Amino acid sequence: PSNIPPIVETIPFIGCFYQFAKNPLKLVRSSYDKLGEIFTLHLMGFKMTFVLGPEAQALFFRGTDEELSPKEAYRFVTPVFGKGVVYDSETEIMYEQLRFVKNGLVLSQLKKAVGIIQEETEKYFENKWGDSGEIDLLYEMNKLTILTASRCLMGKSINKSLGQSGQLADLYHELEEGLNPISFFFPNLPLPSFKKRDAARAKVAAIFHSIIQERRRSTDDSVDDVLYTLMNSKYKDGSILEDEQIVGLMIGLLFAGQHTSSITLTYSIFYLLNNLEYFDETQKDISDIVTKENQGEINFDGLKRMNRLETVIREVLRLHPPLIFLMRKVMTPMEYKGKTIPAGHILAVSPQVGMRLPTVYKNPDSFDPKRFDVEDKTPFSFIAFGGGKHGCPGENFGILQIKTIWTVLSTKYNLEVGPVPPTDFTSLVAGPKGPCMVKYSKKQK
Amino acid sequence: PSNIPPIVETIPFIGCFYQFAKNPLKLVRSSYDKLGEIFTLHLMGFKMTFVLGPEAQALFFRGTDEELSPKEAYRFVTPVFGKGVVYDSETEIMYEQLRFVKNGLVLSQLKKAVGIIQEETEKYFENKWGDSGEIDLLYEMNKLTILTASRCLMGKSINKSLGQSGQLADLYHELEEGLNPISFFFPNLPLPSFKKRDAARAKVAAIFHSIIQERRRSTDDSVDDVLYTLMNSKYKDGSILEDEQIVGLMIGLLFAGQHTSSITLTYSIFYLLNNLEYFDETQKDISDIVTKENQGEINFDGLKRMNRLETVIREVLRLHPPLIFLMRKVMTPMEYKGKTIPAGHILAVSPQVGMRLPTVYKNPDSFDPKRFDVEDKTPFSFIAFGGGKHGCPGENFGILQIKTIWTVLSTKYNLEVGPVPPTDFTSLVAGPKGPCMVKYSKKQK
Ligand code: HEM
Ligand code: HEM
Repeated sequence: PSNIPPIVETIPFIGCFYQFAKNPLKLVRSSYDKLGEIFTLHLMGFKMTFVLGPEAQALFFRGTDEELSPKEAYRFVTPVFGKGVVYDSETEIMYEQLRFVKNGLVLSQLKKAVGIIQEETEKYFENKWGDSGEIDLLYEMNKLTILTASRCLMGKSINKSLGQSGQLADLYHELEEGLNPISFFFPNLPLPSFKKRDAARAKVAAIFHSIIQERRRSTDDSVDDVLYTLMNSKYKDGSILEDEQIVGLMIGLLFAGQHTSSITLTYSIFYLLNNLEYFDETQKDISDIVTKENQGEINFDGLKRMNRLETVIREVLRLHPPLIFLMRKVMTPMEYKGKTIPAGHILAVSPQVGMRLPTVYKNPDSFDPKRFDVEDKTPFSFIAFGGGKHGCPGENFGILQIKTIWTVLSTKYNLEVGPVPPTDFTSLVAGPKGPCMVKYSKKQK
Repeated sequence: PSNIPPIVETIPFIGCFYQFAKNPLKLVRSSYDKLGEIFTLHLMGFKMTFVLGPEAQALFFRGTDEELSPKEAYRFVTPVFGKGVVYDSETEIMYEQLRFVKNGLVLSQLKKAVGIIQEETEKYFENKWGDSGEIDLLYEMNKLTILTASRCLMGKSINKSLGQSGQLADLYHELEEGLNPISFFFPNLPLPSFKKRDAARAKVAAIFHSIIQERRRSTDDSVDDVLYTLMNSKYKDGSILEDEQIVGLMIGLLFAGQHTSSITLTYSIFYLLNNLEYFDETQKDISDIVTKENQGEINFDGLKRMNRLETVIREVLRLHPPLIFLMRKVMTPMEYKGKTIPAGHILAVSPQVGMRLPTVYKNPDSFDPKRFDVEDKTPFSFIAFGGGKHGCPGENFGILQIKTIWTVLSTKYNLEVGPVPPTDFTSLVAGPKGPCMVKYSKKQK
């Protein structure tokens, strides 16, 4: 039919795939420049239709799961999340599981989280960083956020099993290497990174299983964390989650929250130190709110009031959204401005390309946190956390974590960084090309 | 045209590739059963024509480099071997480099090698194994052969830099993981294993560069190993090899010889201990030749006379050739029995499939070293080492190494093994699926 979206001319099909694999954004952006807000790429047997710009993106975010299936598009993550969990379960079960997760991340939990994150962060710097040195910031923030996040999710038990050894961070790194943009196209190739991924998942699962068992035996009833919420959640039919499902959800939550947060944190630090005007503003807030008003205590309400830090983080996420593509499988033909997207296509939005369109944000490539001083009211223009029914349930937790860690770090240390690193688009979660070397020295008291 | 080789029906093209990637042999063997000694597989944009059986294989091995180019087929190994080395150089230069390699592996070198291998092996067991324990045999044989082979290739300097730390073995492991059957089809995908491969190669190259420089400064003129041969070789135009080329050749030689040898060694040990009749025969030879005749000295002539061990190794290689595919690019159309293989095809033989055809070896799937008691006179039936102009120059060295290590090992230790492990076909060099756990205990004196 002639009313399907225009198809990108692909000379040799392998060539196009290479181009896409190396830098998927270039091809998407240049196709947008040529063909506009909706077009189809043929890649390795997949037909991927992209929608770009808030109006077209609304089609994506407003679609129901029956029309646009995340399950069918995200099957390739099952080797990490596990069988029977979220995208690998019946739609109804998936909704219920996502609801359990949201229940685990309610306000009361977030309030408690701040203190835990602060404590873990201070301990980490004390034990690992000492007075001065040079480190790979991305690597360090990875290790730190996995500690803080896992403490918030499943309490102190996690530290006993893993110490501050970084073992969990290393295992998560292997998980991440075993899920990359290629694995969407070839989920079952016998690649070494896939074998390591499966071995790493087995180890993580064993650790989490033993934590659950320990928790069951424990008589301490003061614990009340995400794991507790999951262990005490009931499906509508009254049944509780199987251990296997709890383990899968914990792995999935940490996976969803870990690299996204540590990447955003790392980029935020680079931007703050490369833009001293904003750095000074955030330090003044910290000094006013934390040091003076709260006698050094970092708490939820104080963090909420750090507006400049918040707009810096949002602007960093606009420029560098860790998830550069979101996808759904088209289950029933979808109409958009007289074009029909056939069933079977993969419908995709790109936060990375979509938030740098000049029709959406002025001077889209420059770092300007002030643009968020007035609230952005167009729906689906800021999509770093997705939107609609599947919008990120971890948004508040993620931002809180970044704010807490930055507050501790910038209070304790002076940092010296180079220019903002470019992005490596070859991982599933796109972050700064490492190593991101940073010099630090303790501030005089 | 209708006289091209028959084409294998490939239902969905990705599906066929998966099948091939998981177990490339099944598809090749079943196509042979259906279509006979010559057929074409369409895989990911490549047209691969297979020739099977000694007669058809002769076409492959007798072709000149102008007709059948190894260079064009093996480009994907360049990230490991290096630029300007062997398959990445002009055909004439490639021949000369292969000649230098052969000069480094002449009889006089092999004779010296035996003593070195024995010494390193004894040291290794003394330091690493002790009296008894359980180890992953494949992993251990990998570490050991890389030590013995690198000592033979470049003398004692290698130990100073790397100790017996196994660092070189680990780096070679990363090289190998960065070259797998997939990388033939997608040599440039941004896979994590490819990034690690490149980092590992840079490290190995740095180590070898410093060894060459040290050698240049040294005044000891008693050294005379493969490295020495390469450093003193001259191209026909009188020029010597660049350091970069020497490094590339050393990396390539170790790479070509390492996994092939350690895999064959591991499989040989499993077969010997699972077939005690042959085990006893080899032990009698060792006792007669080494212990009695030569008062415990292992030497070249003694090893040459160990016929049973030799036929065991050859039978192991027939059943489990580490290189399961050899390939050439067809440069000018080739005729075979009225069929034309068009230029542009990849011509392939499969030692693994080809040496298990019932028309070539009786009871092809059973382990029967005695079949080699009478010499096998059909050309190109035994092709574990390839054949023709590009036949393996390391054959004698490889077998010698295996014989020496087995002699030391079986004299020192009693071993207990499980059944012969199946083969993992997803590596470039196909070996037993690990871990290959083996129990050992020192023999009473
Ligand atoms: C800066 C940090 C984060 C970013 C940029 C981010 C981004 C996103 C985006 C874009 C989506 C939507 C995916 C889609 O529609 O296909 C998403 C979903 C999700 N995120 Fe986050 N995320 C972050 C942190 C977190 C954290 C800390 C958690 C958990 C504690 C988390 C848990 C999840 C979950 C469970 C989903 C799936 C929701 C669903 O399918 O309904 N995220 N995230
Ligand atoms: C059991 C051990 C070994 C096996 C089964 C083996 C197998 C092979 C095969 C099948 C080929 C032919 C490739 C083709 O035609 O495309 C080959 C080539 C080669 N092998 Fe080996 N090999 C072994 C050990 C070694 C060792 C120990 C070395 C070095 C010391 C070595 C160095 C080479 C080189 C340099 C070539 C390329 C020759 C050329 O292209 O002309 N191999 N090997």
